[in-house]
Parts: sequence; structure tokens; C-alpha cells
Amino acid sequence: MFKAEIKSETLKGLVNIVSTLIDEVKFAITPEGMTLKAVDPAHVAMIELNIGAKAFESYSASSTEIGLDLDKVKTVLKLAGPGDIIAMEQDESKGRFIFKIGNITRSMNLVETSSMSDPKVPQLTLSANAVMLVDQLQKGIRAAESISDHISLKADPGFFELSCEGDTDDASLKLAGTDIESLEVPSEVQSLFPLDYFSNLVKAIPSGTKIRVELDSDYPVKMVFGLAGGEAKVVYFLAPRIESD
Amino acid sequence: MFKAEIKSETLKGLVNIVSTLIDEVKFAITPEGMTLKAVDPAHVAMIELNIGAKAFESYSASSTEIGLDLDKVKTVLKLAGPGDIIAMEQDESKGRFIFKIGNITRSMNLVETSSMSDPKVPQLTLSANAVMLVDQLQKGIRAAESISDHISLKADPGFFELSCEGDTDDASLKLAGTDIESLEVPSEVQSLFPLDYFSNLVKAIPSGTKIRVELDSDYPVKMVFGLAGGEAKVVYFLAPRIESD
Amino acid sequence: MFKAEIKSETLKGLVNIVSTLIDEVKFAITPEGMTLKAVDPAHVAMIELNIGAKAFESYSASSTEIGLDLDKVKTVLKLAGPGDIIAMEQDESKGRFIFKIGNITRSMNLVETSSMSDPKVPQLTLSANAVMLVDQLQKGIRAAESISDHISLKADPGFFELSCEGDTDDASLKLAGTDIESLEVPSEVQSLFPLDYFSNLVKAIPSGTKIRVELDSDYPVKMVFGLAGGEAKVVYFLAPRIESD
Repeated sequence: MFKAEIKSETLKGLVNIVSTLIDEVKFAITPEGMTLKAVDPAHVAMIELNIGAKAFESYSASSTEIGLDLDKVKTVLKLAGPGDIIAMEQDESKGRFIFKIGNITRSMNLVETSSMSDPKVPQLTLSANAVMLVDQLQKGIRAAESISDHISLKADPGFFELSCEGDTDDASLKLAGTDIESLEVPSEVQSLFPLDYFSNLVKAIPSGTKIRVELDSDYPVKMVFGLAGGEAKVVYFLAPRIESD
Repeated sequence: MFKAEIKSETLKGLVNIVSTLIDEVKFAITPEGMTLKAVDPAHVAMIELNIGAKAFESYSASSTEIGLDLDKVKTVLKLAGPGDIIAMEQDESKGRFIFKIGNITRSMNLVETSSMSDPKVPQLTLSANAVMLVDQLQKGIRAAESISDHISLKADPGFFELSCEGDTDDASLKLAGTDIESLEVPSEVQSLFPLDYFSNLVKAIPSGTKIRVELDSDYPVKMVFGLAGGEAKVVYFLAPRIESD
Repeated sequence: MFKAEIKSETLKGLVNIVSTLIDEVKFAITPEGMTLKAVDPAHVAMIELNIGAKAFESYSASSTEIGLDLDKVKTVLKLAGPGDIIAMEQDESKGRFIFKIGNITRSMNLVETSSMSDPKVPQLTLSANAVMLVDQLQKGIRAAESISDHISLKADPGFFELSCEGDTDDASLKLAGTDIESLEVPSEVQSLFPLDYFSNLVKAIPSGTKIRVELDSDYPVKMVFGLAGGEAKVVYFLAPRIESD
């Protein structure tokens, strides 16, 4: 059983993040909230999303699993205005999921979840971490976009840097001082990442969100941030590109 | 002879409605106003438009016919700002129609009307009718759009409903109470219509317009609404899709 | 040596004008400012741009030449907000040009200028000249766009006219009285020009800019206007289309 109400902006924010990675998802539901763990088809990135019951306007659920097609959920979100409340309900007898927005009712088949495996979230200890507004990363991505398919993240005891090298062009964004919230870096580390994955995620995070970036040399980067006023938490891993030369 | 001035917004509103159905049109002109009757090439929908002389800022005409290509009239409308007055004149000697907007003059060949027949407006008595803001229908269409090519309109003594059924998805909008201006329905009626025709018309109607929907089971729907502050009147018929199963 | 700072809006305005004609450009640099002379690949139009040192927030240069790819400069401009200052510097040792906007650094290879010739600016005495807001020309272009590939400019002792003739459609914009700032025309002159060149230039000029149009019959049109608060000056020549019939 699952029945809940959520602000349209909150649901939109959550769907935008997850759908950068995957379309069909499985939510593990408990009376305390919802959890989602997913990897993209190419196994380059992984997302773990925990949504507490307090992220909802109302929430009532027993333990269950719900499979949804996020592309369809997006069409529902387009029907909602900024202040709207979206009511959601699982219709177990018909295998359907029902959204209600004002006088609109929109129902869709649940997605079969039996074939969806639960990815294991890696336990990584990364030596460097930095906290910044996501806006800074978004700015660095814009600078990198026309130059290369990869972006380098570097953490140094004195600064955090995004950079990009092409054959004839370079771009970099150096964060230090007031541009960065906190920086704990024992010694310089650096890894290279696919720009498209990094960009799709970072652009989907609402402006003004604080993000913690955990980094090491030639390791996945771990990014942690909150949504829904802190009642939802996202952990995102992105595999590095190991240069073999 | 035809010579008139009209507010750009008013002309834009009229052209938007008619051009959902047909591009080349014939206006029957009299000293009292203009009339247009047209069916689309597939004979699925019909429009009857009556524009009284009072819809114009100035109006002077003898009885005549004028054929226009609405695609070209739209390019003229793009030259006008919101407060602009558009002067229109028929140049009978050259077979041209002339628009003037400020210091711009734009003239175009009249379209040959001799081959355009006058469709007969059907005289239908439909058992149910409902009046609502077109905004409600626009909302229902947005909900239906990704689901099916058809939309069902249902009038019940207690409510008016738009709904759409796909293989895996449903959507519906139920209007009752304050969402509806008036509702006269002896007993439930329902018909199915092509979503594209219904959508193109309803989306072209300015937000805030009241529309009367006349409905019966497996009959065309008749929609009546005013434009130009009520000085122009539109009657639109759309044929049902009869399900043969 | 070249090192300067400029407001992002100013640089954007200059690049927008030049890039209507050509992508790879050569700037001749002196301690007093920068000059650019360029023709388009088809030799239909020529631009001469003089940017005085006062157009910059700071300016320090010795005599040199710098070759830039304006398409790349445009990607840099997208990284700057309206109030941003863009720092520019030539790195002679690496053959690079470096832009800095806040904490972003963006560098690119200089373009080889040795093969770029210096076009000779024609010395023309054209009998008619008219000064107007570029907004009027922009309006005339919008009216002409769907009608023909050419636009006619006519200067008469009493008015200045843009017009366009198609097979079935005409458009014209007649400027007289308060629509025109000054008009010195001994006798009527008229020439026909390619609409795309004329349109690309005129649309790139900021609204509110005064432009002087110098015209004669079957001669190039010369257009002169200022940018960067008058600290930059543009002279643009466009060859006429000579009708041979």
C-alpha cells in the first residue's frame, strides 16, 4: 500500500535528478519513506536516493516495491503548476499508479520490477572532499562544454579546480576562498570524468544547492547533496576515465 | 469595396481560430460585417464565423467576396505590436488586398474564390450542453496528449468529463461545481473525437473565453464562443469517431 | 603585447557585428586601439571596424596583429553575465589568447594571420545620405522577409524607402518626417541589395543605434554607425545587385 501527497516542485526536483541516469526505476517503499538505487545501462554511474516521509505533504505506506516509468511521470509533472499538490496512489488490484492534480486524474501501468536488480552501493574512502554551491560546478561545465568530452576534477589543499583540455583550447574554473564552503584535502588528487554524465547530473541540481564532492586520484567521484529542503538525500557515484598512455 | 481598421490582437485572434482548419478562405462581406464558412479538407470539422462591423475600429464595405491566404496574413500579423491598428483595403483594380501598419505597407494577391463552395451548416439539436472556461478544456487536452489520438467527451447530469484511454495509461478531467458555468444534461451522453482537431481549436481560443459545448451520443459536438469582445461569434462542429466493435 | 579588459556587453556587441560577415579575423593592434578590415568570402560586403582604447575598461598594447576565431569568442561570451568584465591577454610564447571572467580561464590558439590579406576600403562619394534609428530598418526587414531575396533602398528628397517585390506580394516601409533624423538627397536614387546580407547586419546592430545610410543608384550602400558608446566605429559596404534586363 502506498498513498502520498507531494508538492509538484519537490517531485519535479527528484525526478529530474534520477532521470539523468535511467528511465524505468524501482522504489523500495517503507512506512518511513522511499529508497531508490540505480545504475545507468553502461554502468558508469550510480545513484542512491533516500526520500524521507517528511518530504511529502502526507505519506502512508506499508513495505512494498513500486516500478515507475519516469518519462511518463514527467508528462504528469507538466500538468502541474508551481503551487500544486500531486496526490499519488498505488492501485494494487489493477497494477496501476494513480496521480491526481486538482480535477485531473492520470493513471499508468506499474513497471515490472522483478527483473531489476539492486546495485550494491560501493563503500569508498576518498581522501579529499570539498563543499560548494552547485552553481559553481554549473559554471565550470558551461566553460568546458565546447572543448572536450572529458572534465578533470582536481582537489588541492588550497583550491578545487574543474578543467578541460582540447587540442587548441583550454578552460578551467578555480574555486578558492569564498567560492568554496569547505575544503579538506591532505594532498593533491585528480581524476578525469565523462563530461556528459557529470554535466547532466550537475545541471539537474537546483541552483543554490550545496554539494559535497569526494575525490581521489583515479577513483570514482562521490557527490552528496540534499533535495526537498533536506528531507531527501542523493548520493551519486561517477566512474573515472583512466588514461592509458 | 472593403476598407476597415482593426486592432492587431483582434485580427490575430480571429485568424488563429480559422487557420486551425484551413489556409485559403473566402469571406462574404456585407455592410454589416463579414462571414466565413469553411470545412477542412478531410470534412471532419466545420467552422462558421460571423464578425460584426463593431469588431472593427472602422468599417466600410459593400457586398462582395474576398479570398485570403491566412498563412500570408499571419506574416503580416507578426509585423504588428500589441497596440497597433491594422488598416485593410481591397484594391479591386489590381486584385490585391492591402494591409497598412504604421509606415509599413504590405500587399498580396487576392485568392480566387470561384472554386470555393459554401458548406451547409448542419441544423442539429443536441440533448446536452455545458458552458465552461476554455482554460478547463485546455487543461484536459494537456493531460490527454501523450495517451491516445482520441478524446472522449461525456456530459452527465452531475458533471462534464474529458477522458482518454491508452493501452497502459488513462487520463481524465472531471468538471463539476464551480469548475463549470452551467450544465443542462437530461441524461448521460458521450462521444469520441479526434484529439488533434479538438486540441488545435481549443488551444487557439484565448484563455478566459467562455465556451458552450453541445453534445450527444455519437453525434458531432458543437462548440460556440465569442471573440473580439463578443462582436465576433464562432460556431464549430467536429464529427465524432464512431467505434465499430 | 596585448592586454585589456572590456565589458562583456561591449565585446558581445562588436563580435555580433563582425561575425555576420566572417568567422576568422585579424585585428591590427596599436597602443591607441584595434582595427579590423574584412570582406566576406563571396566579396559582396566589407566591414571596417575601429575600436578606440577608450572602448575598453583598461587597455595596454604595443603594435601587433592578433588572429581570432569569432565562433570561439562567442562561446566565451556565453560564459559572461551582463555586468561582467572580460580580461583578455595575448600569450605570445604559446601562441594563445587568454580570456578571464571571474574564476574562469579560457584560452585558445591564435589564428594564423599571414594568409589574411588587407582589403582596400573603397573611396566612394555617394550622392544621398539619410540618418535614422536602426530600429526602422529592422522593421522594414521583417516586412520584407517572406517576399523576396532582395531589398530595394530608395532615397528621395522627401523620404527614404525600403521595399520588396515578389510575384504575388509586395512590402514597403516609407520613412519621412519624424521617422528620419536627417535626409540629404539631391535627387532620387535607388539600388537593390541581397536581403540576407543587409538583414544579418541590421539585425545585429543594437536597438536604438543611429545609422547613416549613404546611397546612390547602382552603387554599393555605405552604412556607418557607432558601438561601445561611440568609442567604436563601423563602416560597412554592401554591393548592389545590378538588374540586367
